[in-house]
Amino acid sequence: MSIDATTLAALADQAIELPSWAFGNSGTRFKVFGTPGTPRTPEEKIADAAQVHKYTGLAPTVALHIPWDKVDDYAALRRFARDHGVDLGTINSNTFQDDDYKFGSLAATSESARRKAIDHHLECIEIMNETGSRDLKIWLADGTNYPGQDDIRRRQDNLAASLAEIYANIGDDQRLVLEYKFFEPAFYHTDVPDWGTSYVQVAALGERAMVCLDTGHHAPGTNIEFIVAQLLRLGKLGSFDFNSRFYADDDLIVGAADPFQLFRILYEVIRGGGYGPGSPVAFMLDQCHNVEDKIPGQIRSVLNVQEMTARALSVDTAALEAAQRDHDVLLANEILMDAFYTDPRADLAAWRETRGLPANPMKAYLASGYQQQIAADRVGGTQAGWGA
Amino acid sequence: MSIDATTLAALADQAIELPSWAFGNSGTRFKVFGTPGTPRTPEEKIADAAQVHKYTGLAPTVALHIPWDKVDDYAALRRFARDHGVDLGTINSNTFQDDDYKFGSLAATSESARRKAIDHHLECIEIMNETGSRDLKIWLADGTNYPGQDDIRRRQDNLAASLAEIYANIGDDQRLVLEYKFFEPAFYHTDVPDWGTSYVQVAALGERAMVCLDTGHHAPGTNIEFIVAQLLRLGKLGSFDFNSRFYADDDLIVGAADPFQLFRILYEVIRGGGYGPGSPVAFMLDQCHNVEDKIPGQIRSVLNVQEMTARALSVDTAALEAAQRDHDVLLANEILMDAFYTDPRADLAAWRETRGLPANPMKAYLASGYQQQIAADRVGGTQAGWGA
Amino acid sequence: MSIDATTLAALADQAIELPSWAFGNSGTRFKVFGTPGTPRTPEEKIADAAQVHKYTGLAPTVALHIPWDKVDDYAALRRFARDHGVDLGTINSNTFQDDDYKFGSLAATSESARRKAIDHHLECIEIMNETGSRDLKIWLADGTNYPGQDDIRRRQDNLAASLAEIYANIGDDQRLVLEYKFFEPAFYHTDVPDWGTSYVQVAALGERAMVCLDTGHHAPGTNIEFIVAQLLRLGKLGSFDFNSRFYADDDLIVGAADPFQLFRILYEVIRGGGYGPGSPVAFMLDQCHNVEDKIPGQIRSVLNVQEMTARALSVDTAALEAAQRDHDVLLANEILMDAFYTDPRADLAAWRETRGLPANPMKAYLASGYQQQIAADRVGGTQAGWGA
Amino acid sequence: MSIDATTLAALADQAIELPSWAFGNSGTRFKVFGTPGTPRTPEEKIADAAQVHKYTGLAPTVALHIPWDKVDDYAALRRFARDHGVDLGTINSNTFQDDDYKFGSLAATSESARRKAIDHHLECIEIMNETGSRDLKIWLADGTNYPGQDDIRRRQDNLAASLAEIYANIGDDQRLVLEYKFFEPAFYHTDVPDWGTSYVQVAALGERAMVCLDTGHHAPGTNIEFIVAQLLRLGKLGSFDFNSRFYADDDLIVGAADPFQLFRILYEVIRGGGYGPGSPVAFMLDQCHNVEDKIPGQIRSVLNVQEMTARALSVDTAALEAAQRDHDVLLANEILMDAFYTDPRADLAAWRETRGLPANPMKAYLASGYQQQIAADRVGGTQAGWGA
Repeated sequence: MSIDATTLAALADQAIELPSWAFGNSGTRFKVFGTPGTPRTPEEKIADAAQVHKYTGLAPTVALHIPWDKVDDYAALRRFARDHGVDLGTINSNTFQDDDYKFGSLAATSESARRKAIDHHLECIEIMNETGSRDLKIWLADGTNYPGQDDIRRRQDNLAASLAEIYANIGDDQRLVLEYKFFEPAFYHTDVPDWGTSYVQVAALGERAMVCLDTGHHAPGTNIEFIVAQLLRLGKLGSFDFNSRFYADDDLIVGAADPFQLFRILYEVIRGGGYGPGSPVAFMLDQCHNVEDKIPGQIRSVLNVQEMTARALSVDTAALEAAQRDHDVLLANEILMDAFYTDPRADLAAWRETRGLPANPMKAYLASGYQQQIAADRVGGTQAGWGA
Repeated sequence: MSIDATTLAALADQAIELPSWAFGNSGTRFKVFGTPGTPRTPEEKIADAAQVHKYTGLAPTVALHIPWDKVDDYAALRRFARDHGVDLGTINSNTFQDDDYKFGSLAATSESARRKAIDHHLECIEIMNETGSRDLKIWLADGTNYPGQDDIRRRQDNLAASLAEIYANIGDDQRLVLEYKFFEPAFYHTDVPDWGTSYVQVAALGERAMVCLDTGHHAPGTNIEFIVAQLLRLGKLGSFDFNSRFYADDDLIVGAADPFQLFRILYEVIRGGGYGPGSPVAFMLDQCHNVEDKIPGQIRSVLNVQEMTARALSVDTAALEAAQRDHDVLLANEILMDAFYTDPRADLAAWRETRGLPANPMKAYLASGYQQQIAADRVGGTQAGWGA
Repeated sequence: MSIDATTLAALADQAIELPSWAFGNSGTRFKVFGTPGTPRTPEEKIADAAQVHKYTGLAPTVALHIPWDKVDDYAALRRFARDHGVDLGTINSNTFQDDDYKFGSLAATSESARRKAIDHHLECIEIMNETGSRDLKIWLADGTNYPGQDDIRRRQDNLAASLAEIYANIGDDQRLVLEYKFFEPAFYHTDVPDWGTSYVQVAALGERAMVCLDTGHHAPGTNIEFIVAQLLRLGKLGSFDFNSRFYADDDLIVGAADPFQLFRILYEVIRGGGYGPGSPVAFMLDQCHNVEDKIPGQIRSVLNVQEMTARALSVDTAALEAAQRDHDVLLANEILMDAFYTDPRADLAAWRETRGLPANPMKAYLASGYQQQIAADRVGGTQAGWGA
Repeated sequence: MSIDATTLAALADQAIELPSWAFGNSGTRFKVFGTPGTPRTPEEKIADAAQVHKYTGLAPTVALHIPWDKVDDYAALRRFARDHGVDLGTINSNTFQDDDYKFGSLAATSESARRKAIDHHLECIEIMNETGSRDLKIWLADGTNYPGQDDIRRRQDNLAASLAEIYANIGDDQRLVLEYKFFEPAFYHTDVPDWGTSYVQVAALGERAMVCLDTGHHAPGTNIEFIVAQLLRLGKLGSFDFNSRFYADDDLIVGAADPFQLFRILYEVIRGGGYGPGSPVAFMLDQCHNVEDKIPGQIRSVLNVQEMTARALSVDTAALEAAQRDHDVLLANEILMDAFYTDPRADLAAWRETRGLPANPMKAYLASGYQQQIAADRVGGTQAGWGA
């Protein structure tokens, strides 16, 4: 056994939230490729997400995106989800696909754009009350494309005021989670470009305001696990958007581009108390499946997180600390690498079976016929996508 | 006078080709914002491009994108252009917006995809014969998103074979120009990612195959003027796609992000014989106007190129070479910077008037009422865009 | 006149601190090239720095580096400086050139290394009391080269405790300024890698603890002027280390690599209240002169800052704000660029003469014979350098 | 068995050359830390290198650096090496540590600097004739720090002429290998900054001129395995300098920063025919051990290469090609990842014992007492270092 019982017990608690939009079509500014069987409604997205949970036991909740997932009856949507074995999760606001937000939303210079954006978030909070969601996640496209286009400092103050009004409406059991991003779609300045900005904004709000770390939203070379350690130390790491990238915000399958980085991130999560029942950290995927199939793409992602968590939990922390205190650089590094290089897959497969799950979730899904079924059934209507 | 007569004489030869697609709507994967007056047809794009030339005298040709600018009668389109004071220029192929190219085009593993892509280029050559275009410009989205997805080496060989077939059909007075790009839309590997790859591919073809350098298509920190100098030395710099960027391929107005870089690039162009009547180098814009107006955005761009060319032509090259040979680092740098810091705008304004052009092309265009006119006229129909 | 009287009046207040170490030899890990006339003592460094002030009127103070500039009698050193027309400025600590700091200093796991490093800073404070310095500037090389080598989280806590002890010893009129750096000399993790970390550490200390922003210490593509605006908004921008870079921490002459970036930074400094008599922001150079002469290199740097400040002060802020509120992207950008493209050099030359300074400080210095004099005089002894 | 017999047989051929300078002290521009037992002579470096081979069977040759490893009698040095179980390998020239090369060597504007640099290489060839070395490896620090400092184009022509003269003196069984590097120690332009430049320079020389790829010498985000595939396709991949990096040219232990990248590189090496008896590709380490012990650092490196080669050799290439041709993105990626995630360490340990090597070379070396012995013996004299 390369993975011991303690590790397996810890893995039993793992829950990774899926984004409803991962099941719709997505792409680049050059082209969005469609696929047969793509969902046309929020319900169909949830049904697809439930498949991921069915075969992995790892993905019990689905995040919604407003207005993409707007429905008339959220209680009915929640029942639909529960009937499919999952629950509704984080509510994501959207202030980047309306013409009124061309020059910004919560940070905009235009008072009417700010008002509209604040009201949209207040509506999201109402939806959260119906869906029973804990987290309101805010990612802002706000920024500018040209030096001089707008006033960086004023926009930061605008943002603070907008967030304060939204935060004042968050319930006692709810949280506001503010995401940061290095660049795109703004190409000169972005109003929340780094963890420092997200931190100072949420720190000004209060205890229930936290930072969301998207693993693809950093400058080249950024040590992300350092940010994880720092935010946990400050009590402000609210959630993860997992994905991976070789270049910019590529939104590839988590672990696909740099598995060792994923390992180091998860190691710092565990080290800093961010993993396990009492942790405030929500784990979520945020990816695009441009050329690969969506449901198995999500299955691959949650399995990658699970396998890497197993490795990170396997680090011999006592030996590591001893080597660190001895300044034995090579030994300390070897202890960490030993856990990374360990192959947990066979043990995890066996353990899955003890829990009534398929040993190989990917194969089980592919053999299930679900993909063929939705391709046949979902003909007509408008396929969901980033903008749908 | 900060700009002398020799420089002004040299500037009289300057010609910058405009891309027809710059006048349509463009944006990011998150949102494409539309604007009143956006062209609906190739003719309307050409009419808009002609405005840029009318006020600046700098943009006598318009590049077409096939199939976006497909028409039944190219002779008629050419007449239309000439009636508006401009001519048709480079033909750009497009192998990134058809479902068949999901996994590549000229480099694809699929023989049918390659066949289709080659045939598309043969069709482009036929169009060139009708439009009288010299250059076939090829930018390929080909690449993969995940390690293992396809075979890097085989794709390179496929690409060579595809290009050879296309090149064999190029006329004696025509050229094939191959663009490279660091990444996007492919996020793991790109089949033509750097100047080295473009160079070895076109060098294998023959004399009429050249490299296209897009100023936004490099890794962070890349010294682009070095590549300019190297390609000119090798006789293989065929054309420029001008734009600017702070991050990735942001496609901002040329000179907007790093004016000094534009100056250094133009200095090396002149230094290496790439500027002037006998030069093989075609100058073209390739930008997106996501949040700013398109026609004045293009006017600003060509003016930026002109003003920076004036500065680059003003370098005291004899003094510079003397300082270089003396290893007087500070003096050599000062001589270059002196030209950069010189403000040629008043001299250029006066010179424009001597040539029957407005002193301030930007103001003249804005005062002309054209923008209001097209906003009123062009109602209904489908606005042109990257995909239209 | 391109530069008006208000701007010139504002420029009269400008003061840029010079680093004593800029006058010693410096280089890369590959080679340090020496030059004739390089100082051998703190006094000779100060004498050289005084030359920069003599010809520019811009550099009234000299920063010291301890232990490089340790002397027996700081009162005498101060008198020496004043006799040469300058004063002593910031005290810079050094915890990166002693074998005991191989695995860190203020953040180290080793208690004895931390103790030594804290004591070194207490000694620096005593020196500040003698030199009359206001600022203790701390740049830390602390970090690790390999994942697992040490515990990121524990080191952050160690750092907080170390800084608290130092801060407790800072006088009421003194400040602690904490610099951050993306990487180097540590190549895996750095304990103070970004402005966020520096900010949270100094915010925990108190009002007299501030952030130092070195313009070369960021990830590729980082929008530095955004950080300037943010830190000014938070009241925590304590000082600048000016230099420039194309790649990593190249430490080139300020303004040499990207003049437009320097302009944007200075614009945000002014915009945010960081410029002028009441400002808490200290301006300092921190450069290496590897291949160019050192004294004229420093003269070039302070002139670059002055000329760019003149441009930044010239922005028509009322017109800019109006264009921003109108969302006239092209006009707003043009207003900013207009100030950048204005050439203030002739006006500044004339203004210098009214103040009893040479019109061209660079030429005046080169003609003074000082360089030849020190080359002849300073023979024998050990030339100062980064490590000397 | 995760590693099959075919793979093990292929591994038996693996040979990785060690750099003599890896055993001396190295560091950053900030500090070079010394260690007890550091070699003082070329013989002591070779003796240390022989330890790596003794415990791993992977490192049969040692590369020399001229003038660092100059001796009076190379035949005697070769005998010394052979007596210690290793042989002499590549000769590395050095044109970056002499004052005459301050402004360049083979590319310099100064004719005398070029002459000296060419002569140095001719001397290296004479040494190669005595040591029986096949490869002359050239890495150039040539470049400039400031725009305008020197003429990029002229320097490229100078370089071509210098290389031609050196190449004319290379023996029929010898090769010239030209390394490229993105930046450092030059911070504006580097004369051989990328594979394209190295390729066009060596292609102009002839068949026995090749490119050297140092894995740390690229812009952020560069797809190195693509360059491997391209150079193998062109028949011009002469050698590797293995190391790893998180940021710039960090020169960390190979595989330490991004093990998956190392895997992908080795996969393309094998895919393109660069591995095995008939391959023209020389594998070499080029690292710095700044904070870790040097001999075990080198042992860790060659083991990392061996283990990763085992994984790369284990890819099911037939299944991979089938998945690629089916455009089954997820399956193709999974097949590659399956090999990467396989843990070959136990199999390799067992296999080592069958070959008379210790199962755990690292432990065996540490238990041998060699480190303690040299620390005790090598007292006095000057420790070797990058500059010694």
